[in-house]
Amino acid sequence: MFYLTIDILGTIAFAISGVLVAMEKRLDFFGIFIIAFVTAAGGGTLRDLLIGHTPVAWMQNSIYMVTIALAVILSILLQHKLSYLRTSLFLFDTIGIGLYTLVGIEKGLSAGLLPVMCIALGTITACFGGVLRDILCNEIPVIFRREIYATACILGGIGYFLLRQSPLTDEYAYLAAISLVITIRLLAVRFKIALPNIYRKGPNA
Amino acid sequence: MFYLTIDILGTIAFAISGVLVAMEKRLDFFGIFIIAFVTAAGGGTLRDLLIGHTPVAWMQNSIYMVTIALAVILSILLQHKLSYLRTSLFLFDTIGIGLYTLVGIEKGLSAGLLPVMCIALGTITACFGGVLRDILCNEIPVIFRREIYATACILGGIGYFLLRQSPLTDEYAYLAAISLVITIRLLAVRFKIALPNIYRKGPNA
Amino acid sequence: MFYLTIDILGTIAFAISGVLVAMEKRLDFFGIFIIAFVTAAGGGTLRDLLIGHTPVAWMQNSIYMVTIALAVILSILLQHKLSYLRTSLFLFDTIGIGLYTLVGIEKGLSAGLLPVMCIALGTITACFGGVLRDILCNEIPVIFRREIYATACILGGIGYFLLRQSPLTDEYAYLAAISLVITIRLLAVRFKIALPNIYRKGPNA
Repeated sequence: MFYLTIDILGTIAFAISGVLVAMEKRLDFFGIFIIAFVTAAGGGTLRDLLIGHTPVAWMQNSIYMVTIALAVILSILLQHKLSYLRTSLFLFDTIGIGLYTLVGIEKGLSAGLLPVMCIALGTITACFGGVLRDILCNEIPVIFRREIYATACILGGIGYFLLRQSPLTDEYAYLAAISLVITIRLLAVRFKIALPNIYRKGPNA
Repeated sequence: MFYLTIDILGTIAFAISGVLVAMEKRLDFFGIFIIAFVTAAGGGTLRDLLIGHTPVAWMQNSIYMVTIALAVILSILLQHKLSYLRTSLFLFDTIGIGLYTLVGIEKGLSAGLLPVMCIALGTITACFGGVLRDILCNEIPVIFRREIYATACILGGIGYFLLRQSPLTDEYAYLAAISLVITIRLLAVRFKIALPNIYRKGPNA
Repeated sequence: MFYLTIDILGTIAFAISGVLVAMEKRLDFFGIFIIAFVTAAGGGTLRDLLIGHTPVAWMQNSIYMVTIALAVILSILLQHKLSYLRTSLFLFDTIGIGLYTLVGIEKGLSAGLLPVMCIALGTITACFGGVLRDILCNEIPVIFRREIYATACILGGIGYFLLRQSPLTDEYAYLAAISLVITIRLLAVRFKIALPNIYRKGPNA
């Protein structure tokens, strides 16, 4: 129940982030729904395809599609109020990537993958929806340019495999790793921490 | 034989729509072929990947690749005459999405999916090729912005599941649903019906 | 050992070509890594998805991910020297598409596909990584516009199936086809051979 709640909150946050980008591009209702759906379900879809878990997760349970449809309809009806929700949305989104990362890692473990591949799979689950959203809207994906985002997922994934070596039970390690992803992202945004600049000519981008 | 004819006509129409977009971007012969191929086969490919039907359909029967190659070569040879065919192409394309929608729904049913997922799968089969075409040509997919297109597929899919509850045989329901998709699209284009505008500031896009 | 060496050199060349495009777009470190990874592993990933070989190849052996990570780090550290390596990189890249084409064909044969589908699969293996790189960086894929590239893969693939009819052993046919891809590409670049212009209004693109 706890997991489902977080999962649904994450789905809602991802869906609304899709709605916001799609509305900037002035897409029609169907376009907005697709972008929202792809943002919320795209990461899990690629994860399931890569490890061969088909039909993919969202096809096996209609709760995701229903949740996304409701999120889209509400967002459109309340479009002039969405800016008040920006902080809550950021929080859901951050909780969402924490959970999605660990869900992806668990699926990787159950497919017998190496830890480094599990972490990649978790990061894909958390981040690829946003990448697809940006590609469909004809933008260079924002996570390639700004902020600690995927990096939080990767560090949280590494933390999980370290914690599994500790006396902690797997459940605790799981929850601690989710918290780690969330904490890293919150701190990075709060203190404006970004990846170090790698360009010699200065940050003119 | 009937189905195969429609299927091939749909493939030709989708392929030529790919050629037209690719030639606007002045791609070379190979680029045009790939865009045509992706437009015609992309929807079925994503459908097969999502439900795990691999190798995907076009890999198991060379008729699609041969058809697309011939359509591309003829389109290039007759490029100054293509505009005369615009009405026929629109008709093939419309018949194509009708058929592709129902093919996708049938595949969803045989994979044991819920009706809502079958409809999603049918819509993906009919529409995703055009989405890929636009992404590869660096455009925001046209179906997110204009016209009743995916909506016709969705309504046709809903119609199919309603008709299956009726005393009609499945074959009749199938054909009626294809006709429904085609009719909705034709009426929408004829009477310039679009999805309702959802933007408060007026339709400046 | 020979194959692995070539495979790794090809992976490095593809990865660095990703780094170069990503740095032009001034992506951050994570973005550069993803573009490099997708360029090097994207073709094989689509190949494995299309024929249902999951988990996909790069998930089953960490050598690719390690190689790509090292190539990215070295490229960034030596970014002002990369231009000196342009010829070597072109050579690795050319060897890479030769090998990747034949790897894809072999996988197609072992999946029981028709020769034309095997050639398509080989071409996808060799070329799709670069296509994904360009899509993610918001460009029309370069191979749709310029140069003999995919065409070399296709001709090499046709050569392979012709050579298999000859008294040559499969191993020789395999090596000869790799050489054929490489030779065609080298000659095309050396003598500036491109696909014939198909536009009536002259090559203004």
